Amino acid sequence: MSQYRIALLVGSLRRESINKQLATALTRMAPHDFVFHHCEIGDLPLYNQDDDSHQAAPVKRLKKEVRESDGLLFVTPEYNRSVPGVLKNAIDHASRPYGDSAWQGKPAGVVGASIGTVGTALSQQHLRNILAYLDVSVMGQPEAFIHAKEGFFDGDGNIASEGSRAFVQDWMDKYAKWIALHVDAARANAR
Amino acid sequence: MSQYRIALLVGSLRRESINKQLATALTRMAPHDFVFHHCEIGDLPLYNQDDDSHQAAPVKRLKKEVRESDGLLFVTPEYNRSVPGVLKNAIDHASRPYGDSAWQGKPAGVVGASIGTVGTALSQQHLRNILAYLDVSVMGQPEAFIHAKEGFFDGDGNIASEGSRAFVQDWMDKYAKWIALHVDAARANAR
Amino acid sequence: MSQYRIALLVGSLRRESINKQLATALTRMAPHDFVFHHCEIGDLPLYNQDDDSHQAAPVKRLKKEVRESDGLLFVTPEYNRSVPGVLKNAIDHASRPYGDSAWQGKPAGVVGASIGTVGTALSQQHLRNILAYLDVSVMGQPEAFIHAKEGFFDGDGNIASEGSRAFVQDWMDKYAKWIALHVDAARANAR
Amino acid sequence: MSQYRIALLVGSLRRESINKQLATALTRMAPHDFVFHHCEIGDLPLYNQDDDSHQAAPVKRLKKEVRESDGLLFVTPEYNRSVPGVLKNAIDHASRPYGDSAWQGKPAGVVGASIGTVGTALSQQHLRNILAYLDVSVMGQPEAFIHAKEGFFDGDGNIASEGSRAFVQDWMDKYAKWIALHVDAARANAR
Repeated sequence: MSQYRIALLVGSLRRESINKQLATALTRMAPHDFVFHHCEIGDLPLYNQDDDSHQAAPVKRLKKEVRESDGLLFVTPEYNRSVPGVLKNAIDHASRPYGDSAWQGKPAGVVGASIGTVGTALSQQHLRNILAYLDVSVMGQPEAFIHAKEGFFDGDGNIASEGSRAFVQDWMDKYAKWIALHVDAARANAR
Repeated sequence: MSQYRIALLVGSLRRESINKQLATALTRMAPHDFVFHHCEIGDLPLYNQDDDSHQAAPVKRLKKEVRESDGLLFVTPEYNRSVPGVLKNAIDHASRPYGDSAWQGKPAGVVGASIGTVGTALSQQHLRNILAYLDVSVMGQPEAFIHAKEGFFDGDGNIASEGSRAFVQDWMDKYAKWIALHVDAARANAR
Repeated sequence: MSQYRIALLVGSLRRESINKQLATALTRMAPHDFVFHHCEIGDLPLYNQDDDSHQAAPVKRLKKEVRESDGLLFVTPEYNRSVPGVLKNAIDHASRPYGDSAWQGKPAGVVGASIGTVGTALSQQHLRNILAYLDVSVMGQPEAFIHAKEGFFDGDGNIASEGSRAFVQDWMDKYAKWIALHVDAARANAR
Repeated sequence: MSQYRIALLVGSLRRESINKQLATALTRMAPHDFVFHHCEIGDLPLYNQDDDSHQAAPVKRLKKEVRESDGLLFVTPEYNRSVPGVLKNAIDHASRPYGDSAWQGKPAGVVGASIGTVGTALSQQHLRNILAYLDVSVMGQPEAFIHAKEGFFDGDGNIASEGSRAFVQDWMDKYAKWIALHVDAARANAR
């Protein structure tokens, strides 16, 4: 009953996406009162302002899922040093029409995995800019720019190395506190 | 024969988009040897890396159009303080698969129109970050954050006020020089 | 006794700085239990890592002021589309040496005034990037890109127009709530 | 006589700075007609707009050095995910007073070294934003986020490993072409 419902947004549509895998591993490490709902973004149309007054069914579904959540978790790759277009398209949809954004006031965390060395720092920076505008409160530290080389996940989809697992567990613990801080305050205000 | 072929990318799908209108007004102000091709981005699928080896027909078309161009012109609104997802999706598509980007080495200009006062500065900043990574050489100054209030365009689609028209004409003149500088050098190298 | 002590950082050294004026007007609009301390940054040396083990007196003073604060208020102009070097220099100083940052975990707000139309949006964006890294939790909305034209402040240093005053008062009210949320939670945790 | 004079700006004041070392190694790899002048930025005052009409001697010197250069080379660490305050302070000085910027129209390259894995990507991104505004044309690719671990430089200050040396040589070759392209065009226009 005092659960924290988290809308999970993954920035890659690829079937074997390491960010999807990271999302799975991450959510298993969350406290028991955290419930994650993976939001499908691959069936959304391309955003067109002409449709603001009659949003498509997948757009309405996404907005409902975000609205019903207490917090957000973004797990995303970097495409061309920025947020994947497919994720930005989802963000644009759920922010519209003007004055009816579903994102408003949600607490959030941002993580990303890549196989390269520069990682997802630039994608996360742009995403933080966007989310600040949408009045989403994103946890500052710890940053998590995960380098997921071959063998990062074990056969069960968990993080293989103890060191990486401890790092990600610490991230999740702090994320959970960040979410609880904001949600509990909002619930107290609402009473 | 010594024409400059410009691929024009507009970041909004809206029918009455002021950025589409700005693109039209702008291209009319270009030198006679500049030829603009409007690249359709509204029929692209959402980017999915699983499709890299069999890109959809609209993706192939976009890549061909970009490849055959000498330079690029981006005219785009700002959505949530960043590049519209629909435009980023197009950029992602034409950059893939890895090692086969169509954008590489093209000179470009970036402009944007908005009705608000903050304008498109943040969208253009993210776009510049992305394009630098794609090895697209974007003109620095003049910046153009156009405030297109009611009546900005006249009945023929030209810029109504003399002051704004002069500002945009100056932008276009410098853009044309920037493109010619890079294209002429590349052509000289190719000889 | 349950006061909120705020370290105030102004990004301009100019005597008649409109951001200094904005800081003065802003702090007068705060709740009575908010106490502001203006941190001098104009007498800091240029940051040099060789001095990390023997920081100069003004650096030690700044770090002490930040450490003793419950929250932060940044009021800054935009210089060349980014944070003024003078403010970044102060931020760098108080973040060092590695592992001994004074900024860690403080809640904050960011505002800025300019006379131009583009305003301070790009400066604030870079500042938000920097502060996220320093684990400073910056309020997302409302953004405040203040256009302080001639006559913006009245003879007593208050905001002259009723509309602007209401906008800034609303910003301050939300800022005060943001600070209280984070400080009260930290205090509860510490008990 | 047809030399290319490059103003070199290093973002760290530390005596043993790896970015200073990188700058030294880099400039040795330049074509023979490239002449580098290291611009001192450590003796500049903190920028204060009140001094615009009577800039201090080190400010005048920096502006003269930049003005007399044909191009720019920035070699800089990342401090707190952005440009070091000390470098931004130098940039602010030489951009002032309004209308009298020394940077205008110069071609440039941006590189950076760090010992960490995230590297200097975020610093370089902010620097590119700033330089675009100042109408400095920064080469897009190749990016160079150098990881300079222990032993990166040999006893003579050159890059030790063959692979890294080849990467940096390639960067320098492309940088030299970028500078020559812009300078030669400007010289042709001036004739």
